[in-house]
Amino acid sequence: MSESDSSNTILLKDCSFVVTQNPNRDVLKDVSILIEGGKITKIFRTSTPTQNVERVVDCRGKIVMPALINAHTHAAMTLLRGYNDDAELHSWLQSVWKVEAKLTGKDVEIGTLLACLEMLKTGTCCFVDMYFFMDCAARAVEKSGMKALLGHGMLDFGDESKREEELKETKRFIKFVEELGNPRIRAVVAPHAIYTCSPELLVEAKKVSEKRGLLYTIHLSETRKEVHDCYRERGKYPVEYLDELGVIDDRFVGFHAAWMTRKEISLLASRKATVVNCPASNMKLATGGAFPFREYTDAGVNCCLGTDGACSNNSLNMLEEIKFAALLQKWFRWNAQEMVAQQALDMATINAAEAFKLNNGSVEVGKVADVVVLDASSCFLLPHHSIVSNIVYASSHLAVEHVIIDGVVVIENGRHAWLDEEKIKDDFLKTAERLVSEVKEEGEE
Amino acid sequence: MSESDSSNTILLKDCSFVVTQNPNRDVLKDVSILIEGGKITKIFRTSTPTQNVERVVDCRGKIVMPALINAHTHAAMTLLRGYNDDAELHSWLQSVWKVEAKLTGKDVEIGTLLACLEMLKTGTCCFVDMYFFMDCAARAVEKSGMKALLGHGMLDFGDESKREEELKETKRFIKFVEELGNPRIRAVVAPHAIYTCSPELLVEAKKVSEKRGLLYTIHLSETRKEVHDCYRERGKYPVEYLDELGVIDDRFVGFHAAWMTRKEISLLASRKATVVNCPASNMKLATGGAFPFREYTDAGVNCCLGTDGACSNNSLNMLEEIKFAALLQKWFRWNAQEMVAQQALDMATINAAEAFKLNNGSVEVGKVADVVVLDASSCFLLPHHSIVSNIVYASSHLAVEHVIIDGVVVIENGRHAWLDEEKIKDDFLKTAERLVSEVKEEGEE
Repeated sequence: MSESDSSNTILLKDCSFVVTQNPNRDVLKDVSILIEGGKITKIFRTSTPTQNVERVVDCRGKIVMPALINAHTHAAMTLLRGYNDDAELHSWLQSVWKVEAKLTGKDVEIGTLLACLEMLKTGTCCFVDMYFFMDCAARAVEKSGMKALLGHGMLDFGDESKREEELKETKRFIKFVEELGNPRIRAVVAPHAIYTCSPELLVEAKKVSEKRGLLYTIHLSETRKEVHDCYRERGKYPVEYLDELGVIDDRFVGFHAAWMTRKEISLLASRKATVVNCPASNMKLATGGAFPFREYTDAGVNCCLGTDGACSNNSLNMLEEIKFAALLQKWFRWNAQEMVAQQALDMATINAAEAFKLNNGSVEVGKVADVVVLDASSCFLLPHHSIVSNIVYASSHLAVEHVIIDGVVVIENGRHAWLDEEKIKDDFLKTAERLVSEVKEEGEE
Repeated sequence: MSESDSSNTILLKDCSFVVTQNPNRDVLKDVSILIEGGKITKIFRTSTPTQNVERVVDCRGKIVMPALINAHTHAAMTLLRGYNDDAELHSWLQSVWKVEAKLTGKDVEIGTLLACLEMLKTGTCCFVDMYFFMDCAARAVEKSGMKALLGHGMLDFGDESKREEELKETKRFIKFVEELGNPRIRAVVAPHAIYTCSPELLVEAKKVSEKRGLLYTIHLSETRKEVHDCYRERGKYPVEYLDELGVIDDRFVGFHAAWMTRKEISLLASRKATVVNCPASNMKLATGGAFPFREYTDAGVNCCLGTDGACSNNSLNMLEEIKFAALLQKWFRWNAQEMVAQQALDMATINAAEAFKLNNGSVEVGKVADVVVLDASSCFLLPHHSIVSNIVYASSHLAVEHVIIDGVVVIENGRHAWLDEEKIKDDFLKTAERLVSEVKEEGEE
């Protein structure tokens, strides 16, 4: 099977519930949705005749909602899921680096493709990724039918020749994406973090981002250590430091952003920057900081949500991540209303759509048709007192029925519409085993 | 279809992985498991001829592990899942009580049956429940093929006649269970909490528990408020108070047990009591306390795991709960090794089996055949660097293939083997809607 044509028309007929994520956050009952040319063109109550509709999806007993957006991943790290887990941080990092040193471009393609499968099957249409061999990652995304914003993770540790290499690779990758010409794939400029990048690299990266009009994504204040190191070295906190370098504006996306002063939050707000909450990863790696959601929200900073890599989560399931997000905020602040279900869902949909200018994230006329169809009659989602609450707090075990991206049915009855899943999993398992055995052999030499 | 006979023999043939949970915590590869008369009678490497085996389950590419034990639930509260969620605590409680006042025994049966379906589909074989109309709950458990320890939740608020009623109901229910004669169902004595039960009720309940040799289960130190109220009123902490009443021994099971002094932990240890961690519920209700797992473990207190009710979680998925348990401990203590994957899985299996004397919780010869079969080749569980880590950190979205209880296949290819799931869900939805509309009508009168 091959990818179907997005010019097709699809009718999502008689949807029992539509979680619109529109400005009123309406949950509509018993409506149909017409998708034409990859966009939502009509939402209507009565079942009009379905002439000229190539495909009708019976949505009685179903929930239709915007597909989710995973705002922080290292997709290919699925290859390392569960590898030396729960080890002490230093020993864990050492062991991960040893495996990563063995990775080839093909491996990254294979790891990313499995990640795409996992994300699609849990209702995600788009992810923001930072890793290496990114043209290989792009190839996987292209095959999968997903959308992605991909960045070559740059680090120079102050070394000038490394810096030149990294910038060259970023520029090469940006050109690669331009030539690919796939509207579902965009490049981002991705310096790794302030503790791995020199100020020169951070500034040069900003120039590239400005020149090409691309997002500038970076790990930001994930651990207390990096914040304190920054303050000790520079007498200023990370956001202050980055702002003085001139890199923070509305294209700036900070991953984690957990350990923050109020002054930094104000700065991020005034620059219209975006921050990405990664609660499960922060919990698993014991970073001790909770994303200051209330302060960001009060200041007007746009908050998104990400799983981080499968090495530190260990899943890429945004239906699970929304629950972690809301529950950690509530518990941390001793306030059950600290982050309500609707706010968690917003981070994973409409907030990210806005931050990344995707024109999706809600089910509204004129929006891109990136939607998920769930079974409302699953025992996990009964009863229907609150559909939003059910999705956020009770859906992690739910089978996603269909995922539609740009009007193309990518997941159909829980299976990928054109990919050979068995082949992907087989290649993946062999690759992961080869990597580990290579590292083991090296250790024995 | 009707429930099959546990005297049947089943061969789990060529299991790719067996998470034994035996004393060495071995994960075996490529073994077969023979189940006879509801027990595991043989675990062997070579595929011997399968004569006299009534049923062979091909377990190539599968993981076999002990079925999970949910040590704290209010199963029928599935009827209230998502009802007035995220509201301020007082308003939420008021609204829940209004619905509960409308509950009939039949409603409790219907709510419990849906809960059983949800628990079975997420790999749970047994749960410890506290609610009311418990003979109706028992009927649901019996239909479902699950195991349960059921207690009528007693509270008297110091009222003597209410106390007599509650004790009478508990004794009646114990007699009902005896007469039922179903070895899968056991009664427990279940005073609700120290803030709802008089010391007289707590002591009388203990007498019943001793006389009948039954467990004594109670909500314990869930919120800081109840701990401080206890100390202010009595000059002692809850465990000290209960110990002075003489109710703490090896039959004592404390739910939540989050806000604890070291002295109380020592007391629980010396009495060989059991405590139950409920991380998702504690997080969602913003109790602010984290179960002191390290201190319990160091002191030798047996720790189990529970989801609490679907009103405060909002799912009954133990595959999700094990992840919440480990991640909250790590994050809270700024230590990624605080609770490792193996410890989380232990709480949900072997620890609970020991606490409740179930003779299951591990896959070993002589143990009761309460096991789960999972698909090792699911994209969520790849690669296979660590099967235990995958189960704890990456399995929440995983489809459970088979659940076997007492040697009976209860879940088969993800569906209940004999129940009409559609009918159960239909009855459930109607009941939940009726309850809410009754409350609404009352409010409008």
